[in-house]
Amino acid sequence: MKLKAKLLKWSAGIPVVMLNKNTAGKIGVHALERISIKTISKHPKEMSTIVDITSDREIKENEIAISTEIQKRIEIRNGQKIDVNFAQIPQSLTFIKKKLNKKQLSEKEINEIVKDIVNNSLSDAEIALFVSAMYEHGLTMKETIFLINSILKSGNKLKLGKKFITDKHSIGGIPGNRTTPLVVSICAAAGLTMPKNSSRAITSAAGTADVIETIAKVEFSIDELKKIIKKTNACMVLGGYIGLVPADSEIIRVEKMVGTDPEAQLLASIMSKKLAVGSKYILIDIPYGKTAKVSRKKAIDLKKKFEYLGNHYKKKLKCVLTDGSQPIGNGIGPVLELIDIIKILDPKENGPKDLEKKSLFLSGEILEMTGKAKKGNGSEMARKILYSGKAFKKFKQIIAAQEGNLKRIKKAKFKKDIFVKKDGKIIEIDNIKINSLARITGCPIDKSAGLYLHHHVGNKLNKGEKILTIYSESKSRLGQAIKFYKEKKPIKIKYFY
Amino acid sequence: MKLKAKLLKWSAGIPVVMLNKNTAGKIGVHALERISIKTISKHPKEMSTIVDITSDREIKENEIAISTEIQKRIEIRNGQKIDVNFAQIPQSLTFIKKKLNKKQLSEKEINEIVKDIVNNSLSDAEIALFVSAMYEHGLTMKETIFLINSILKSGNKLKLGKKFITDKHSIGGIPGNRTTPLVVSICAAAGLTMPKNSSRAITSAAGTADVIETIAKVEFSIDELKKIIKKTNACMVLGGYIGLVPADSEIIRVEKMVGTDPEAQLLASIMSKKLAVGSKYILIDIPYGKTAKVSRKKAIDLKKKFEYLGNHYKKKLKCVLTDGSQPIGNGIGPVLELIDIIKILDPKENGPKDLEKKSLFLSGEILEMTGKAKKGNGSEMARKILYSGKAFKKFKQIIAAQEGNLKRIKKAKFKKDIFVKKDGKIIEIDNIKINSLARITGCPIDKSAGLYLHHHVGNKLNKGEKILTIYSESKSRLGQAIKFYKEKKPIKIKYFY
Repeated sequence: MKLKAKLLKWSAGIPVVMLNKNTAGKIGVHALERISIKTISKHPKEMSTIVDITSDREIKENEIAISTEIQKRIEIRNGQKIDVNFAQIPQSLTFIKKKLNKKQLSEKEINEIVKDIVNNSLSDAEIALFVSAMYEHGLTMKETIFLINSILKSGNKLKLGKKFITDKHSIGGIPGNRTTPLVVSICAAAGLTMPKNSSRAITSAAGTADVIETIAKVEFSIDELKKIIKKTNACMVLGGYIGLVPADSEIIRVEKMVGTDPEAQLLASIMSKKLAVGSKYILIDIPYGKTAKVSRKKAIDLKKKFEYLGNHYKKKLKCVLTDGSQPIGNGIGPVLELIDIIKILDPKENGPKDLEKKSLFLSGEILEMTGKAKKGNGSEMARKILYSGKAFKKFKQIIAAQEGNLKRIKKAKFKKDIFVKKDGKIIEIDNIKINSLARITGCPIDKSAGLYLHHHVGNKLNKGEKILTIYSESKSRLGQAIKFYKEKKPIKIKYFY
Repeated sequence: MKLKAKLLKWSAGIPVVMLNKNTAGKIGVHALERISIKTISKHPKEMSTIVDITSDREIKENEIAISTEIQKRIEIRNGQKIDVNFAQIPQSLTFIKKKLNKKQLSEKEINEIVKDIVNNSLSDAEIALFVSAMYEHGLTMKETIFLINSILKSGNKLKLGKKFITDKHSIGGIPGNRTTPLVVSICAAAGLTMPKNSSRAITSAAGTADVIETIAKVEFSIDELKKIIKKTNACMVLGGYIGLVPADSEIIRVEKMVGTDPEAQLLASIMSKKLAVGSKYILIDIPYGKTAKVSRKKAIDLKKKFEYLGNHYKKKLKCVLTDGSQPIGNGIGPVLELIDIIKILDPKENGPKDLEKKSLFLSGEILEMTGKAKKGNGSEMARKILYSGKAFKKFKQIIAAQEGNLKRIKKAKFKKDIFVKKDGKIIEIDNIKINSLARITGCPIDKSAGLYLHHHVGNKLNKGEKILTIYSESKSRLGQAIKFYKEKKPIKIKYFY
């Protein structure tokens, strides 16, 4: 059936169309079921979408109302003719259930699942089932490789033709651990190519893409991306939206909804992002600890799996196990983390020392892996690049190439300082609770929201000293955050009396 | 924040509200996140709902647009003031993840999950995670009892004060197996009280509630229900909507979406429905077979679990294992099944013998359990009641009490007959494929859609004979169904040459 597109400024968080009741009846689709829509043009674009139904007169029988989420994925003009058809239950759901039943999946079956995720044929509940099946039963290394290949196949590849394409990635879970912009700036300043494509935050308060997005664009076409890298030797962009790994972005979106991040998808997500940009040298940061994503034992196991995959794809891959016992840096949330980063980059300013030290260590590892620095000399070389201001210059160059501007930093509308009631000492900061607290403030969507940790574990505090500032864009979120802080006590203090 | 309700004729399949972008900003809620809404009145009603956001001018800053799904759950007048607040991520999600991590849940934790399901605080993806956690790790009998108690606590109980409150239930999965209306009519005619509250179909083409809904109402208040039972000794209604087991209805809605029906929830769902109406005698039909829900081995295991629960709740409970190797009856789909039932009930007509025989057997079991018939004599007593027309009279009385009318039966708009190409014999009819095929036609939502099986396993067919008729309300669904039939071959025929 051919219908006329009616573009609405209507956002449901996921792609949705609205049909008139009579039109839906003719197609045979019920609310919450799926239809496929296809633009009628020389290069038709097609996707599936769920349906809302209305019997109000706003949507006429020959119209299809389009939410902003669809407009972001397919270019549709107001009034354009769209071919609309009933979509059957996707066969891939059978394969998801097969995994749920502890069976191994074939390459074809995984391809089918990934294909249906990309063209939006699977619902959030169905993708959640896949996430939980992976979480429950894991994937074998064979299946993980199928998944990586599927994700790569469903997206585009970046071909740069450079020799020293390098990348780093953290498995995540540690609030404030925003080393990437520092490592990218240092290494690119040293002459390495670092086409960094990140995801948004899954369970934490911000991802690198969320942070960079506060002052620059992070969504580009492949061609635009090539220009940025040609100009600056680097980039810090969103992998899913440039069509590099769209399947990964969709799975991550649902993982965020259900707050679950299975290991197999973590491996596939990181590896596919690195492979899509043709990285040859890959450094993986695995922070471990009591409230980190992994324990030390699990970290060692994960290291082996990454090394297996590195070997399979013929890449020089190194894993470093780092301290993930507490948040790193002071700011938590996109803008607040960015402020820390700029303070470290700017030789005239002082940023958080723990974040600086870790970034120098990771940069040093990369400089040594690629032969830019001699063994044991990487960290010192990185420090020189940072302290000379060269890394800051490189960072500003990348931001400018991504149409950004450092002046765009904006503080949150509301804030609340938390003071210590008695003299004492911080004995623990819980990563998981700090992440939850930060998300309650509204980040990563509200860029300026988040937390500022004035102290770390081991610090002694005097009565009346500030330990935390909570930032939010709305009073109700600020109130919720304060309530959560009081109830869950993410920062444990041992009082002296 | 107080907003003015704007009732829209807008159905999204799940409860949704739409807010103006600026209003959403003030509350601090993003698209797809949740808010709690509360009516401002003497007896305020409260629930959670996800949010769509618009920057079109239709929804003003002081307004909240309400979808029909919310209007069904909470009575809201156009223009009524609604108190709107940001809703935090529910704590019950932590407990769902605990189950996902193979841990046992406490009574308090299960209560919390069920409470959040009922007030709509958990998203479909989150409920899907719970369903899959139950599917993966099952629940212990202790947890199952907690779940049953929680479901009961979150709903209302029907107190009838009658002696012979009896009920039957099938675990489902067999197309056309619509014995309930027959058993209820026969047993109620024999003087037993049968307050039957059913669910809608989960994975099959129709549930008893879907079938009865084609000609009568199935949603009543507790008081209305009592009147119906007082008048007729029975009812056939939807348990969730009279507030008996609302939690069960919600879980089942998500199970339908993901096509998964874990055993623990099956036990809890059936038991809670029976307990909510105060049944003392309970008969459970467990059809087993290759393409049934369970194998014979699993059926025996399930029987033990039901008996354990019957014992725990001090009920007289009996399980019968029945043949589930193929569909029962001819019609599959709400209207088509109802036509079969009426043909069996009406002494002047002839209905499908397999469905009649099974219904008489189940009725006989109940008549014997309650002492209405002597041991070994139940089936014969049931037959007499059926053949005398008393059961038909009772059925019509129940339908009338539920504001129904037998004349409301309507055939589907489109149909397609399938003929056999050569002489042969039916060697298998696959329950699962037949269910899928029936759902593709549009049932249970499209009441008249579905299948008519002209033959069963073992029947010999001559070339050109009709084996199946497919009914649908839309041409596109009919086309999809024909395609599925040809590809998946749900009916296996051995040709003679």
